[in-house]
Amino acid sequence: MKNILLLTTGGTIASTLSEAGLIPIDIHNKFKNILTDDETNINIEEVFLLDSSNIQPEEWKILAAKIFENINKYDGIIVTHGTDTMAYTTSMISLMVQNPPIPIVFTGSQLPLANPLTDAYDNLKCALAMAKSEYKGIFIAFDRTIILGSRAVKVRTSGFKAFESINLHPFANITSYGLVISDEYLNKNNYNKEPILNTNIETNVFLLKLTPTTNPNIINLLIDSGTKGIVIEAYGAGGMSFIRRDFVSKIDLAIKHNIPIVLCSQCLYEASNFNIYEVGTKALKTGAIEALDMTTESAVCKLMYALGQTNKINEIKKIFQTPIANEIQIKK
Amino acid sequence: MKNILLLTTGGTIASTLSEAGLIPIDIHNKFKNILTDDETNINIEEVFLLDSSNIQPEEWKILAAKIFENINKYDGIIVTHGTDTMAYTTSMISLMVQNPPIPIVFTGSQLPLANPLTDAYDNLKCALAMAKSEYKGIFIAFDRTIILGSRAVKVRTSGFKAFESINLHPFANITSYGLVISDEYLNKNNYNKEPILNTNIETNVFLLKLTPTTNPNIINLLIDSGTKGIVIEAYGAGGMSFIRRDFVSKIDLAIKHNIPIVLCSQCLYEASNFNIYEVGTKALKTGAIEALDMTTESAVCKLMYALGQTNKINEIKKIFQTPIANEIQIKK
Repeated sequence: MKNILLLTTGGTIASTLSEAGLIPIDIHNKFKNILTDDETNINIEEVFLLDSSNIQPEEWKILAAKIFENINKYDGIIVTHGTDTMAYTTSMISLMVQNPPIPIVFTGSQLPLANPLTDAYDNLKCALAMAKSEYKGIFIAFDRTIILGSRAVKVRTSGFKAFESINLHPFANITSYGLVISDEYLNKNNYNKEPILNTNIETNVFLLKLTPTTNPNIINLLIDSGTKGIVIEAYGAGGMSFIRRDFVSKIDLAIKHNIPIVLCSQCLYEASNFNIYEVGTKALKTGAIEALDMTTESAVCKLMYALGQTNKINEIKKIFQTPIANEIQIKK
Repeated sequence: MKNILLLTTGGTIASTLSEAGLIPIDIHNKFKNILTDDETNINIEEVFLLDSSNIQPEEWKILAAKIFENINKYDGIIVTHGTDTMAYTTSMISLMVQNPPIPIVFTGSQLPLANPLTDAYDNLKCALAMAKSEYKGIFIAFDRTIILGSRAVKVRTSGFKAFESINLHPFANITSYGLVISDEYLNKNNYNKEPILNTNIETNVFLLKLTPTTNPNIINLLIDSGTKGIVIEAYGAGGMSFIRRDFVSKIDLAIKHNIPIVLCSQCLYEASNFNIYEVGTKALKTGAIEALDMTTESAVCKLMYALGQTNKINEIKKIFQTPIANEIQIKK
């Protein structure tokens, strides 16, 4: 008999249509009916009832603490969550709840449970299969695929394959054989470290996605308004303008103000590498931190996390580039 | 005999390795050798010699004028360009050079021409095939695929399939049959409108990609610093926070300051739809403009273009949502 905790936070899966659009509703009995079987006890607890667009760092801390207080009481935890910010939440929970001894599986749906074509049943059933497994970590179960929470990005606004696992193979798939763990992860998920709860984060972090018309003075505005860290989504493998609109000197300025700068790519797929081009090497010389193969979601969360531990830029870089939950791979 | 003009702007395709990373070099003779055949006259002209990270609105105007002055003198134009900002450039040139009577084909490479594994030969040959075709418009030729310039996004930092055609089928593929136009475009490319050059754009436009920790006061900072228009990459089909970090009231504030706000999605694939969720409908009520199925690159360029024509928000919305080069599809 497996004891599974279902934490609900709202989202489309728990929404209904009102005149103002989809709004969250209480849906616990329906969830219980879907998830109950002969070998599973389900306890359900509502943590929030929010459209995930409103789930923010303050909610992350509450959710992380709620998960942590239950990781020794259950065999697995399912978290239902809106899809819009789910990848940000799982990226942050992967850092806040380290070394979980059980599977923590986030899921949701693109269509409300009440819709006859809903993907909610499938996603909940697949989340349950993963939550009952022996594998440890923070995951998303969606469209019959299990993805590491630290690698998820929402890539589709409406299609059922809403999430992709970026720069790392999906953890598992649900096929006619049931839950099929990918070869890459077999025998690699057996850590025996102590679980850690760490919700110290700095929330004053800004994401700057460059365009060819972005005015570099935005960096001055961010410095002057007290921003504590900046993630820059540059072009391609690692490009940004340094003629006319000079971002390199602005990065240098921010770092001199003790504001760490993380550099990642606005390309969805593949790692950035700021060592290839002249512009990238100029940026790195200022002391900027490379996000390498991380998702933007994980890069923003990791910078928030690193700034929550220290305000020394060298230590922030070290924390940022040390993997916690497979969110970054360092290849030398 | 086809007369083809090759305009060069720099980029990896024209780069070589220096101690400071890849830097652009003069490479015209090599280009000429690759592209010359019995049925083609190639004229080559250097417009810039820049890493595309440094190609900005000022370069777009020069390039658009250079293309326009040649569209009645040649059967087709090829533009070599770095990959990093190529999708931004083709999105903007699609608006600045309207109804071109010939194919204008951008290409480049992920590896320099001098590298034995380069993709430059393939991409140049495919660009030539498209430039010699009877089809009209602004295109990218890359990895044996022809994409509408208004629909291109760079999605891979290093892989040869660097670009994808977003929310619209690729225009053509290069197969063992040669240039194969996709069924969707057969007989749909025969417009006979007058070519138009319009390089009036407003460059003071900002792209804001939301994260759950973004401080909404960024909108005040942008208003106070004279920003003329803002594109917001919201979550999923159309989400943004309105509890605690209230973006809806900030959008309202910006619009009251006569600053148009365009709403799009940070999901790579599929159209946004701000009518589905309560948060989205709240945002639309302020008068924000939906980017629907546009790429972020096209949304930023289109707002710059619309602001270059008028400063009246209602007219900006109308210009923004009227297709010029297949960059937006309106479904009612």
